Amino acid sequence: MTAVGAVIGIDIGGTTTSFGFVDAERGELLADAVIPTDPDQPAQTLVARLHENIESLLSSTGSEIQLRGIGIGAPNANYLRGTVENPPNLSWGGSVNLVKLFQKYYDLRVVITNDANAAALGEMYFGAAKEMKDFIVVTLGTGLGSGIVANGELVYGAGGFAGELGHTVVDPDGRACACGKQGCLETYVSATGLCRTAFQLMADRQEPSLLRSFSFNQLNSKMVCDAALEGDSIALAAFDATAKILGIKLADAVAHTAPEAIFLSGGLAAAGDLLLIPAKRYMEEYLFTPYKGGVKVLLSGIDGGKSAVMGAASLILHEMRS
Amino acid sequence: MTAVGAVIGIDIGGTTTSFGFVDAERGELLADAVIPTDPDQPAQTLVARLHENIESLLSSTGSEIQLRGIGIGAPNANYLRGTVENPPNLSWGGSVNLVKLFQKYYDLRVVITNDANAAALGEMYFGAAKEMKDFIVVTLGTGLGSGIVANGELVYGAGGFAGELGHTVVDPDGRACACGKQGCLETYVSATGLCRTAFQLMADRQEPSLLRSFSFNQLNSKMVCDAALEGDSIALAAFDATAKILGIKLADAVAHTAPEAIFLSGGLAAAGDLLLIPAKRYMEEYLFTPYKGGVKVLLSGIDGGKSAVMGAASLILHEMRS
Repeated sequence: MTAVGAVIGIDIGGTTTSFGFVDAERGELLADAVIPTDPDQPAQTLVARLHENIESLLSSTGSEIQLRGIGIGAPNANYLRGTVENPPNLSWGGSVNLVKLFQKYYDLRVVITNDANAAALGEMYFGAAKEMKDFIVVTLGTGLGSGIVANGELVYGAGGFAGELGHTVVDPDGRACACGKQGCLETYVSATGLCRTAFQLMADRQEPSLLRSFSFNQLNSKMVCDAALEGDSIALAAFDATAKILGIKLADAVAHTAPEAIFLSGGLAAAGDLLLIPAKRYMEEYLFTPYKGGVKVLLSGIDGGKSAVMGAASLILHEMRS
Repeated sequence: MTAVGAVIGIDIGGTTTSFGFVDAERGELLADAVIPTDPDQPAQTLVARLHENIESLLSSTGSEIQLRGIGIGAPNANYLRGTVENPPNLSWGGSVNLVKLFQKYYDLRVVITNDANAAALGEMYFGAAKEMKDFIVVTLGTGLGSGIVANGELVYGAGGFAGELGHTVVDPDGRACACGKQGCLETYVSATGLCRTAFQLMADRQEPSLLRSFSFNQLNSKMVCDAALEGDSIALAAFDATAKILGIKLADAVAHTAPEAIFLSGGLAAAGDLLLIPAKRYMEEYLFTPYKGGVKVLLSGIDGGKSAVMGAASLILHEMRS
């Protein structure tokens, strides 16, 4: 039996961490798994647990896999420095060199970037952006991440941290953000932002709602989504308010780099049309005239929620090929 | 006498139009002049007047100049199509092919772009961004324009219209903008936006001000600037409010492309430290942590208000060389 050359793609999120093996030649996902991130534990613990789980998945796959490299998407990851710095949704502290942590276990090339930058590369390699030179990927999970491609290249910026739309300003006196600022986009538009908005609406309004029986700690975005699908007016209003803020900020993003398309991915994007249709309508309303009607808003072109892992894999494949 | 090869750089603004001859080899400004734009007249009239004035400046220069090409910066100019489309501050209507209008007078290559994109190219060729791969130029005149350079290339976007920060949303229910939307950045941060803010402050507050003796039609940004330099509290507050909104939106721009520097140019940038210092302070306040302390805010590196003409010239020089 000949060994299959593969890379590992790892996506570290605020709640869960996904990883998978991707065929280095054909770009196929060979096997993948998800573990809890345990964001209150240090980075070393997560890397040790990932190593165990990677080895266990490796031995459980039928075919012999020869690992060639590791690509990692993580919040606040710096491509140039190999570090994760002050991640708002992980208790890792100042600066962690994740590349070095992985190289304790694997004698392989390890590349790291912002999780949403990785998703953008994945969309370009494996998704619906194969023919596009200018597009943006917005990941809607615990927070809101973004990866911007302009002139056919991922925008890293001067310090390696470009594409952080989640921390653009919606309201300078608004909601407290995990990053220490107030009123950042991700405090409104994310899985947690949607829940905060639902509670704000329950406080402001009188109408009954399925959501009134859940505590703040219990409620998650899937419950708001399910309630909205049953016609719950608070849940529907929460989606509308979320979509309006998202639409305005997407219109702002278009005024920067004028993408051909904006892709939504991540947990909250699973709400599909509940979010996509009003977000697109609001974006159109606030777009500067020359852009109107010219920007697609789409769900990620990578099936089954694998966009983050495929993106992380495409990051290392991109490095190996260039 | 041997002829000097030169290009014409033309900057069409909402109030004035500048043009000049730039040495095609050495990049030196040989001669330049300014005429009123007369924004209520059609584009044909402006082009005819420019032709007259160009010929007159050509014949008044001592040396023999051989024209090699024309670069034009104009509001809402589309590089890909050669058109100016729905310019908010010019009464030209839908779509005007400015390249064709100029080619009626000159059998030369004519290239057109957004005035702020031209300023960004000028900063890269002749100004303070010669060594930079990632920067933004913000032009503060009648409106607010912007040119974004990422990975060493000007960002045109999918439709050729990228870099319109002046039409990002400050307040969806805010001031009426010439573009038809409400609350666009340029209704607050521009020469006219500063004056609107001064009148709003005079309406809201009781304190005396030098500005209370001027009508809305009389007041211009230079008068607000002069009053601020004399310590007028309304004028100072107008600069502070303008700088706060500019600072927030620059922080948002950094969250998109993470530039090494942001250059301010155009008429209102002439206010210098009155705007620059508080804008930088507010930007720092609203920057996402990884960017803090890492982004310079500077006045254009091109002396004497020539950045727009030098930028338009660099546009055609860039085309001739590539």
